Formats: sequence, structure tokens, C-alpha cells
Amino acid sequence: MTMEQISANLSHGGIQGVYSHQSSETGTEMQFSVFVPDHEQGTRLPVLWYLSGLTCTHANVTEKGEYRAACAKHGIVFVAPDTSPRGDDVPDDEGYDFGKGAGFYVDATQEPWARHFQMRSYIESELPALIAQHFPVDMKRQGITGHSMGGHGALTIGLRNPDRFRSVSAFSPIVAPAQVPWGEKALSNYLGDDRYLWRQYDACALIEDGARLPDLLVDQGMADNFLDEQLKTHLLEQAVTDAGISANIRMQPGYDHSYYFISSFMADHVDWHAERMKE
Amino acid sequence: MTMEQISANLSHGGIQGVYSHQSSETGTEMQFSVFVPDHEQGTRLPVLWYLSGLTCTHANVTEKGEYRAACAKHGIVFVAPDTSPRGDDVPDDEGYDFGKGAGFYVDATQEPWARHFQMRSYIESELPALIAQHFPVDMKRQGITGHSMGGHGALTIGLRNPDRFRSVSAFSPIVAPAQVPWGEKALSNYLGDDRYLWRQYDACALIEDGARLPDLLVDQGMADNFLDEQLKTHLLEQAVTDAGISANIRMQPGYDHSYYFISSFMADHVDWHAERMKE
Repeated sequence: MTMEQISANLSHGGIQGVYSHQSSETGTEMQFSVFVPDHEQGTRLPVLWYLSGLTCTHANVTEKGEYRAACAKHGIVFVAPDTSPRGDDVPDDEGYDFGKGAGFYVDATQEPWARHFQMRSYIESELPALIAQHFPVDMKRQGITGHSMGGHGALTIGLRNPDRFRSVSAFSPIVAPAQVPWGEKALSNYLGDDRYLWRQYDACALIEDGARLPDLLVDQGMADNFLDEQLKTHLLEQAVTDAGISANIRMQPGYDHSYYFISSFMADHVDWHAERMKE
Repeated sequence: MTMEQISANLSHGGIQGVYSHQSSETGTEMQFSVFVPDHEQGTRLPVLWYLSGLTCTHANVTEKGEYRAACAKHGIVFVAPDTSPRGDDVPDDEGYDFGKGAGFYVDATQEPWARHFQMRSYIESELPALIAQHFPVDMKRQGITGHSMGGHGALTIGLRNPDRFRSVSAFSPIVAPAQVPWGEKALSNYLGDDRYLWRQYDACALIEDGARLPDLLVDQGMADNFLDEQLKTHLLEQAVTDAGISANIRMQPGYDHSYYFISSFMADHVDWHAERMKE
């Protein structure tokens, strides 16, 4: 698998790169960013995946996420994929919450979405193989996090792949998409009306159905405009309590849904993953 | 003097705000950002000014500067003004290096610029008075830094106002605008052809003419595309050596001119200013 480097900037002693490749899963060119901290030649570093939220590309967290200092300190590679396929051939929706920028980390089965919106397979299989091939990473030590729709992605991908990830965390995740407007719109359009098929893409449903994590860190701003209608953190609190999952779900007074919030707690999350990704 | 709050986000425990006001100096509405860290009611905090470079507004450093963690740790207010007047009435130039986004922190005397391009008086007088009125600041403890054109601004404003600033630093500053294309274009248009009048806006000339600083911190990327033609850090090295100014001018291998560079050393600069802005 080949990829092209779009840019590379030295930052915090490491290389912040942006790359593109032709994805067989999405049938489009996909872009992503990778930060590789300074490291001894020949060493292989743990990888922290960050999945972004609605409307975002790799660029939002790359510019505003404030993760590089912490990743440099711990020697962690940070990978930020895009949130959907892009391009003139890719179908879209008028809303910001569906279509381009809103892949919801599912493999779509419904037309016209199924051809390109294969973000689950892209994140679970194709991109990890590309990362393993081109970067100095130890794929036995992976962690995953994300924000909002990307928090949903991190939780569901983490829950479905307990052998792949040492650690799973999230910022203001959509915890139960099948029960909220953003998720109902996306899952019905991408997957059709059979709600049983949605359960693999719903963190609370996956936990109800038996999926487990060793532990979990979540930060959620209490001044987040989307908390009550779309995020519903209390449903995750209930699900982990019922399942006996050890989870640290921190409701943060005064914080909103923005990168001003994410960047405030990013170093905490990187520290937490680093502890769990030690050799 | 009144101002309006455009936005306020809790971040790193403090408030990152963006504000606007009607400036009498520029005759326009001006925007700026201020980060106020968490602090005890009634305490007054030191202020670090950050002047931005060509094409920037307050937003670039506010989003990409990675200063909030360090300012929160030390209890420092961080102020980021715009780089020029804005608006349909304000004359402009086709180049990115002159006119809007390129005020060069001078008081223009030449038409059509003189009416609005009064960025020296704006930064030296009007905005500090507004900040002192509306924020919990101790104006006896101020520091100033900036990037590129804003590094030029920080150096020249610092050199001309030794009683106001406890500390002056810069990222990739234009150190001798009278000797480089960016500066020659800006200073000739804003100030006219009498080069003697340019000297108050040229850090190396100010030092030659007797201006002094207690010490100085500068970071300059060695992979900066503008280093050889526009920045010419060696001229500052020579000027401080000749003047006997204690300066730590760090040439950083591999770093470019971007915020990936600035953010890498921002915490160092905040730490350095904090040490000098203690009570």
C-alpha cells in the first residue's frame, strides 16, 4: 500500500505529518495526520488513535488538540483519520450531521451510501495496515480515543475489538446513537430500519450485549449544548454500572463541546493511555 | 471605554475570550482575544502580550498557540491583538505583506494609510488601557512576545518602553525591517522615504541608537523559509553583542516558520516571562 506525504513539520521534537492514500474501502483518496515523536532509531512506539467529530477532518485536532507535548513526553504516535470519504463522486446530505464529515464509523449497507461510506472497515482494517507499514509503531500497543461522533467511534470500535486496544477513552461521546437524533438519522440512512443491526454501532447496546472493556476514561463538559439531546452521558454511566465496567466518567463543570474543552483534558488522556500502553 | 464579548470558552480552567471594541486610534472596530486563568477573586495577574505575524488575526495563536496550559500554571493573562485595522473602509494592498493583516505595529504618516494604520498607538496605549479597565491584571507586571512581524512588534515596542515591560521575547522575529524586503515595503509606504524615521521601528537600529533590554529570549527555526531573506537573525545577534545585551537567541535545527514551531517553544517562553513577572 502506498501513501503520499502532503506536509511534514517538526513540532515538539517530532514530525507532524499529513498524508494521503487511495483507500480501497472507501474508493476515494483519504487523508490523515500522524505525529511521530522523537525516538531512538529502530524502536517501535505505541499508537493512540483519535477519531474526530461531526464536520471535522484530521486538521481540527492536529491544529487545536494540544496533544503533541504529551505524546512527545511519553513517546506515543498519534493518528488522526478523516471522518468520512470525500470527493465529488461521494454522495452527501444537506445537513452537517450526515454524509460528508459524518461517516459515523459504520460500514453502510444502504444506497447511495454503501459504495463509499465504509468507515468501520477503513478504521478497523485498512488504515491500521497502512500505519503499520509506514510508521515506527508497535501495533501490539494501541489505544483509541475520540470526540463526539468520534467518541462514539472510539467506544464502539474499542468495544468490538478488545484484543486490539489496550485502552479506550472519549471526549463528549455520543454514547447511544440509536436513542438520539444524530444517531437515528445516520444509522437509519446508512444501515436501514432494522434496529437490531444498529446495536454493533451503539456503545450502550454493545455493553448490554456483553462487550467489555478493562476500564474507561470519559470527559464530558456540563455546559455542552449537545449533552441533553445527543450525548446523554448518563446512559453510559448506567450501562457501565450495570455491566460492572470500571469507568471514570468525569462531568466537567463549565466546559462546552469545543476544542477549548478537548485540549484542556488531552494531556490527561494521553497520560492515561500511556500508562496502559507500556511494554 | 466599552467592549463587547464575542465568545467565551472555559479552557484549562480559565476563560478564553474574544472581544471587540471601537478603536479611536484605528477608527475601526478591533478584535482581540484574552485568556484569564483561574485565580482567586480580587487578585491581579501579570499580562503577557502576544503580537501576531503577517496575515494573522488573534485567532491563529488562540487556536494553535498552546499557551493556555502554561498560562494557567503560572497565573498569567495572555492578550492577543489583531495585526491591523479591518473593514471595507480600510485601504489594502494586493500583497499579503502589506495593508490589512500587516500593520507592522507602526503609526503610519503617509496617505492613504495614516487614517487607520495606527497600530503602534493602539498596542502601546489604547488597548492596554482597555485591558487594564476590564480584566484582573497588574499592569506593573507585563511581558511581550510575538511571531515574525509580531516578533518585530514585540522587540521594538519592548525596546521603546523599557519601563512598561519586565520581559521581552520573540519567535522568528523580523529583526531589522529596514534591511529586508517585507520591512522596506511596509516602512516606505507607511512612513515615507526618510529612512531615519524608520529607525524607531527597527529593533537593530533601536539597539544601535542606545535602546536596551535587561535580557532577551528568541527562538528561530533553522528550516524557516524566511530566515535568510526576511528575518536575518544574525543581525540581532550582532546588535546585542555589540550593545552588551544579555540575550539567549536559540537557533532551532529543523523548525520552520509555522505554529508547529511556535507551539513547541511557547511553554518555554511563558515560563521565562513568568519568572520575570513575579511580584
